[in-house]
Amino acid sequence: MKNIEVCYTPNSIINYKLSNKIIVVIDILRATSTIVTLFSKKATSIIPIETLDECKGYKNKGYVIMAERMGKKVKGFDFGNSPSKILEKDFKNKKIAIATSNGTKTILKTRKSKMTLIGSFLNLTSIVNYLDKQSDDILLLCSGWQGSINLEDTLFAGAIISSISNYTSESDSTIIAKNLYESNKDDIFNIIKKSSHAKRLSSNDNLIDIKFCSQIDKYDLIPYLDNDKLKLL
Amino acid sequence: MKNIEVCYTPNSIINYKLSNKIIVVIDILRATSTIVTLFSKKATSIIPIETLDECKGYKNKGYVIMAERMGKKVKGFDFGNSPSKILEKDFKNKKIAIATSNGTKTILKTRKSKMTLIGSFLNLTSIVNYLDKQSDDILLLCSGWQGSINLEDTLFAGAIISSISNYTSESDSTIIAKNLYESNKDDIFNIIKKSSHAKRLSSNDNLIDIKFCSQIDKYDLIPYLDNDKLKLL
Repeated sequence: MKNIEVCYTPNSIINYKLSNKIIVVIDILRATSTIVTLFSKKATSIIPIETLDECKGYKNKGYVIMAERMGKKVKGFDFGNSPSKILEKDFKNKKIAIATSNGTKTILKTRKSKMTLIGSFLNLTSIVNYLDKQSDDILLLCSGWQGSINLEDTLFAGAIISSISNYTSESDSTIIAKNLYESNKDDIFNIIKKSSHAKRLSSNDNLIDIKFCSQIDKYDLIPYLDNDKLKLL
Repeated sequence: MKNIEVCYTPNSIINYKLSNKIIVVIDILRATSTIVTLFSKKATSIIPIETLDECKGYKNKGYVIMAERMGKKVKGFDFGNSPSKILEKDFKNKKIAIATSNGTKTILKTRKSKMTLIGSFLNLTSIVNYLDKQSDDILLLCSGWQGSINLEDTLFAGAIISSISNYTSESDSTIIAKNLYESNKDDIFNIIKKSSHAKRLSSNDNLIDIKFCSQIDKYDLIPYLDNDKLKLL
């Protein structure tokens, strides 16, 4: 039976062998929620990028460029990292390059995985249904915040563990995330509002994002990493 | 008001400034439970040591030497890391040197703290009462297991957070531990039995240890680190 573990911070990924694993990258506030939303708006592909300079370079190649630092859109980019601010836009046939503080860096750490998926509450059941059909071991990789564990990513890891049909786990990492989710699942928005990240994003605009990212199964789609590009599965 | 954070793995301690903090080192199964028990048996002082060779060298200096690897007592040492196996022994006026897989190594990482305390369920209220009187920031440092988060140390961190009178926290690390403790506090032994560490220690002898380490407030004492030696506060 397949094994599941939760890796709570991107740097701890060095403790795991990746080549035999399906990795679900999690950055609920907000990179993975935004990526899922971009695909719902028909984006063709999304390149996750580490540095602002590299991301900016894609403008001349015809890409939509998006970047966030310290929770805000970076000047000179088309968009930041707010899913609610792209809802009225159309990304049909658009290629996107995106650089965020935590999430895109985390995605780039998984290039040696067997398969990397992008998970958020917005596409929870799509992810769970896909994982249920696979026999490979699974690593739920939280982006965290500046090297530390965070609440909203742990909660989502717990939601996957709580929903998946058959698995084993030799690690306490799954018990802790599952317990957090199952004791808070009736009010995802309220528990995420208590997170330190939500407090940092607590302006009114950002509260809209937090509410948006707390919605379960708004979209039925799965982004995955194909070499250096995210595409729709 | 003092700030509290939980550091879930010893290696993540590099993310924190230590010199202004009271650190509580946690290794419920079993190093910190054993150290607390040794002081209840009147040990004079305990030196936490990283390597077996260095620990063995203390035998000729008149120390009781204790060492554990892979959950077992190491050959040639007086004791391993089992608190229940020292209950009938007398350590009055004895100096002890101890090397365990996780716990003693974690203690040694805190030498730059303002104050390092040794915490376990056995001395929970002693620790909480002490912390309640201090105004310094607090870091609850879990030993974990081979670089990953573990259940029993997280649970104890949550017990401290749940019991302490006044604190602030800008970190989700406290919410996650507190939630785990508060949703399991009525049956500490049973939840610890579910931990991966308990499963690794699941022989009958070790079940006695797990039950022993799940007892709350058996002892009213606080070990602290004075340079390289643990002493009673």
